[in-house]
Amino acid sequence: MDQVRFGIIGIGNMGTSHAKQLLRDIRGARLTAVCDSNPERLRWAKENLPESVRTFSDANAFFVSRAMDAVLIATPHYDHPTLAVQAFESDYHVLIEKPAGVYTKAVRDMNLAAAKSGRKFGIMYNQRTNPLYAKLRDLVLSGELGEIRRTNWIITNWYRSQSYYDSGGWRATWAGEGGGVLLNQDPHQLDLWQWTTGMMPARVRAFCHFGKYRNIEVEDDVTAYVEYENGATGLFVTTIGEAPGTNRFELSGDNGKIVAEDGKLTFWRLRVPEPKFNAEYTGGFGQPECWKCDIPVGEGEGPQHRGILQNFTDAVLRDEPLLAPGEEGILGLTLSNAMHLSAWTSDWVGLPLNEDLFYAKLQEKIKSSTYRKSTGPAGGKLLDVSGTH
Amino acid sequence: MDQVRFGIIGIGNMGTSHAKQLLRDIRGARLTAVCDSNPERLRWAKENLPESVRTFSDANAFFVSRAMDAVLIATPHYDHPTLAVQAFESDYHVLIEKPAGVYTKAVRDMNLAAAKSGRKFGIMYNQRTNPLYAKLRDLVLSGELGEIRRTNWIITNWYRSQSYYDSGGWRATWAGEGGGVLLNQDPHQLDLWQWTTGMMPARVRAFCHFGKYRNIEVEDDVTAYVEYENGATGLFVTTIGEAPGTNRFELSGDNGKIVAEDGKLTFWRLRVPEPKFNAEYTGGFGQPECWKCDIPVGEGEGPQHRGILQNFTDAVLRDEPLLAPGEEGILGLTLSNAMHLSAWTSDWVGLPLNEDLFYAKLQEKIKSSTYRKSTGPAGGKLLDVSGTH
Repeated sequence: MDQVRFGIIGIGNMGTSHAKQLLRDIRGARLTAVCDSNPERLRWAKENLPESVRTFSDANAFFVSRAMDAVLIATPHYDHPTLAVQAFESDYHVLIEKPAGVYTKAVRDMNLAAAKSGRKFGIMYNQRTNPLYAKLRDLVLSGELGEIRRTNWIITNWYRSQSYYDSGGWRATWAGEGGGVLLNQDPHQLDLWQWTTGMMPARVRAFCHFGKYRNIEVEDDVTAYVEYENGATGLFVTTIGEAPGTNRFELSGDNGKIVAEDGKLTFWRLRVPEPKFNAEYTGGFGQPECWKCDIPVGEGEGPQHRGILQNFTDAVLRDEPLLAPGEEGILGLTLSNAMHLSAWTSDWVGLPLNEDLFYAKLQEKIKSSTYRKSTGPAGGKLLDVSGTH
Repeated sequence: MDQVRFGIIGIGNMGTSHAKQLLRDIRGARLTAVCDSNPERLRWAKENLPESVRTFSDANAFFVSRAMDAVLIATPHYDHPTLAVQAFESDYHVLIEKPAGVYTKAVRDMNLAAAKSGRKFGIMYNQRTNPLYAKLRDLVLSGELGEIRRTNWIITNWYRSQSYYDSGGWRATWAGEGGGVLLNQDPHQLDLWQWTTGMMPARVRAFCHFGKYRNIEVEDDVTAYVEYENGATGLFVTTIGEAPGTNRFELSGDNGKIVAEDGKLTFWRLRVPEPKFNAEYTGGFGQPECWKCDIPVGEGEGPQHRGILQNFTDAVLRDEPLLAPGEEGILGLTLSNAMHLSAWTSDWVGLPLNEDLFYAKLQEKIKSSTYRKSTGPAGGKLLDVSGTH
């Protein structure tokens, strides 16, 4: 094979953006099919995509067509796992949009289907291509920071107005998205939080506020406290309601602290590790000598979506290692599910997660939802997502 | 009266430092008496203070002496309220070191005694003289930030080594200090957290780790989450175990956000308040125009202890308003007590605090303490506290 034929299912905001990149920017990739149940989007595809791109309104017809080698799934979140399972069972390679799904039970099934199929499986964690986070991961996993003691991510720069929520009926509902800021805006940070540190928490206590800043039924403000196996603690603070918000990730460890903020990585590096200093010091108020180090980081935010599309294409063509294996999507979603469950039960949630309990509680939320969207001035129209992640 | 005669009770670390300042730097103040039950400290006083300064080994003799107009209390924390009550009942003005005490029940009695006496009552909240926090309070209380939405103080730069804890038998024990980092290092930040915002939380959920980084029985690592009446949330993160640590206080409000860090105050000011923007905006991903403003702040850390001593002296002499009225000491201590109680009960703690429950739990900790100090290399010696607060 010298070219990967891509079929995209779901050509809304993100799917459309991916279609354009596949037509233009990805070596070894070709867009050969799209599928969408919305007639308006299909009409757009027929009018704007090359004639060679086949269009499908029905998922089953799409999957039996063999019009592609790989399926890119860019539908609403709930459908990611079910469509991925269908794609694997139809023997396609699969690249899914984030989040992996809405509840981990379904994502586990997807991961099993992927393993059984032997096909390539990727997830659109495009922030893993950001040199800032790649370098942070490098510093941590190579041991420069030493044992981690605290993680503290303030990620409150996801500002969204009421008009944003009014723009799509499925947005920010339990039935449509299965959550709010955690499901739609934070999947990248939830992934990077564990990807850069190599650590998943042992337990989670989260405080979610639902419809605090916007007329929505899901969470729009979250503070999550976690504890890790090694005794470290962590915080994850997020909202769509603050402007301008903050994106500051601080990691503290035996050898000092690292802060990722404003595209810069700063390492306050101790000359000797803190435990060694503490064991040897005999004075009163002294502390370890510390060097403020500006860590070199590649320019810009990296290749982002294009990078993931290229890497996935290269994985299919030449067996290159995936930067974002699809099976890892369950990790960030587990964090998100655990935060919801902790807030709903007002209690600690230990990991591994009680996936059945989460699923049952989510169904309760969907069933008891009385929320009906009022269509605002931007009602139903497609948003321009260029510049978002 | 054209001069205030000061008597200091407790001439350990802080009392000695105050004695030197009263002898040297405070207009209208004179040091006329000191009291300490430790013969070594009394000998130091006789050898190093002017002959005119009377020395007492017994508190009762000190209080009946009329050798002073104002009593400065710089003993271990537990004794602050009881000695203050005795001082007020003996008709002295009173300035106490922070914290106001160890449990609010006793501090409430102290405040009643102060009110009954009609004497001046101050507390050594010297960080209130820091131009950074004075300006922050000014911005918030004058309404520049608008309604507060989140407070987030990372105050982890209180590094203390094991040798520090080994230097005094009363340090970091339930019986001696009644707590760890919250009682000894954080009283200023706990005060400033509410002083700069004008808000006390409605409820507190805190996660304390006891003896995590040091061989001590009290808390050395704390993450506290709070909720305010107006719906705002807050975080207070503190430890003595991290180097170099962080001191970053972020406030988010309707009109933007303010960060106090590295002696600088930065105000990301929205051109129109966020609620107005949100009500009028009809697009997808827009957000309010934001101006990054460097707020002018006076040089340095302000007059600190000298400032409080001078202000208290001026209050006694000329009825000048107190910058840090003693009655306000109960606020920061309430936060600290609530954090302990939340950790001990693994539950929310609502304010007003259940003071009897806190007191009972503290007594349990003291009674069940099996901790015996090992005297390290710095055992029992006086630490040089110049440069600490």
